[in-house]
Amino acid sequence: MDQEVVNYLLMNKDIKIIQRKDMFNFSLDTVLLAHFCSINKDVNYIVDFGTNNAAIPLLLTKRTDKPITGVEIQKEAADIAKRNVELNHFEDQIQIVHGDIKEFSKYAKHSKLILCNPPFFRVGERSNLNDSEYMKIARHEIMIDLEEIVQCAARMLENKGRLAMVYRPDRLIELINLMQKYQIEPKRLRFVYPKVGKEANTFLIEGMFKGNTGLRIEAPLYAHNDDGSYSDEVITMFGGKE
Amino acid sequence: MDQEVVNYLLMNKDIKIIQRKDMFNFSLDTVLLAHFCSINKDVNYIVDFGTNNAAIPLLLTKRTDKPITGVEIQKEAADIAKRNVELNHFEDQIQIVHGDIKEFSKYAKHSKLILCNPPFFRVGERSNLNDSEYMKIARHEIMIDLEEIVQCAARMLENKGRLAMVYRPDRLIELINLMQKYQIEPKRLRFVYPKVGKEANTFLIEGMFKGNTGLRIEAPLYAHNDDGSYSDEVITMFGGKE
Repeated sequence: MDQEVVNYLLMNKDIKIIQRKDMFNFSLDTVLLAHFCSINKDVNYIVDFGTNNAAIPLLLTKRTDKPITGVEIQKEAADIAKRNVELNHFEDQIQIVHGDIKEFSKYAKHSKLILCNPPFFRVGERSNLNDSEYMKIARHEIMIDLEEIVQCAARMLENKGRLAMVYRPDRLIELINLMQKYQIEPKRLRFVYPKVGKEANTFLIEGMFKGNTGLRIEAPLYAHNDDGSYSDEVITMFGGKE
Repeated sequence: MDQEVVNYLLMNKDIKIIQRKDMFNFSLDTVLLAHFCSINKDVNYIVDFGTNNAAIPLLLTKRTDKPITGVEIQKEAADIAKRNVELNHFEDQIQIVHGDIKEFSKYAKHSKLILCNPPFFRVGERSNLNDSEYMKIARHEIMIDLEEIVQCAARMLENKGRLAMVYRPDRLIELINLMQKYQIEPKRLRFVYPKVGKEANTFLIEGMFKGNTGLRIEAPLYAHNDDGSYSDEVITMFGGKE
């Protein structure tokens, strides 16, 4: 019935991932965010808001051995996430919680690092009309909106803890305003350009809860070469040639 | 007494500019801003806040024949600015006003385009200790601060008129907040990187008074090549090889 496939999450075939064609599949954004976030020695455990099939927690195992919790509101996605953790034998490091971020953040242990690849579109905003119900929830602010995500993060971040997100440039200022509203001071910003000479279509941002002001704009990240192939930097993130 | 020199503002020796070594000299920022701002058919006349020796108005004559007013609070700089206008025979297009932006903006005709290369440093913030009094005023918020500049711009911008500025990344969020406070919605943002692989050290921003939300992040601008020479894009702005 379900069109499940097993893909490799990395080019070196190190991590396998079960995906369903009618559900959200991991994308370049997923990989960019997992590489962008700061994992320093103070990080106790990491939380991924809206983890879907657990692509981000699985990628993070390459960077840290600290515990990672992925929260997912969609039952079917959370089930696949759990099976992906088992498939790759990370039961000791990754915990999948099927639940609502708005509730989870009230009760969970406070964290030094929260990641989120949130829905990019407002309810009613034009997107792919063929989206399944699963995709709609992953891509649109149906179950949670941007402000609620930032609010939930602030609620469960420790002092000087960080929120790292991937998002779209036309909502950059809205996100900065919301982060400041909830005392998460933007510290790092990196723009992702589809190729040289084009406008950015994505950005990565990291803010610090109760941090000082002082933003750094990191070197541009180009997703593709002129011929449409992935750039060397992206290929390296995908576990390709170093 | 004064160490006046005559330089060429452009590599093709098209525009001459009198400068004084003990005063603010035009820089890459000046040239970047003059090229970045949007000059469309609706622009009636252009105002340059803190024009110093009139480098920006002189550069703008290459892009438009609309009237340009440069406002400068330092008497000696305004005098040089007037002489630069005469030296290049732009008396019919460029007007230099010796005065305070805070007063000028109360009385001047409303504009569709205001430019400003503002002081980058707060009062007391560390800068070059050898700065002359002239340089201190040009580089530090002694006579005017960032909020007053944005407030003055909003006061004299027509509806949908634009404010274009060059500034430093660690104060990006402060500037965005101030623009929004005075109803100037950021529309275009371009980061300037000293060279490939480095963090941005400058940005260009343009906001629209009473404009809609929706920010675009333009392609990165690299100032220099790896060997330290100016990039082709910058050389073109300086009137070099096309």
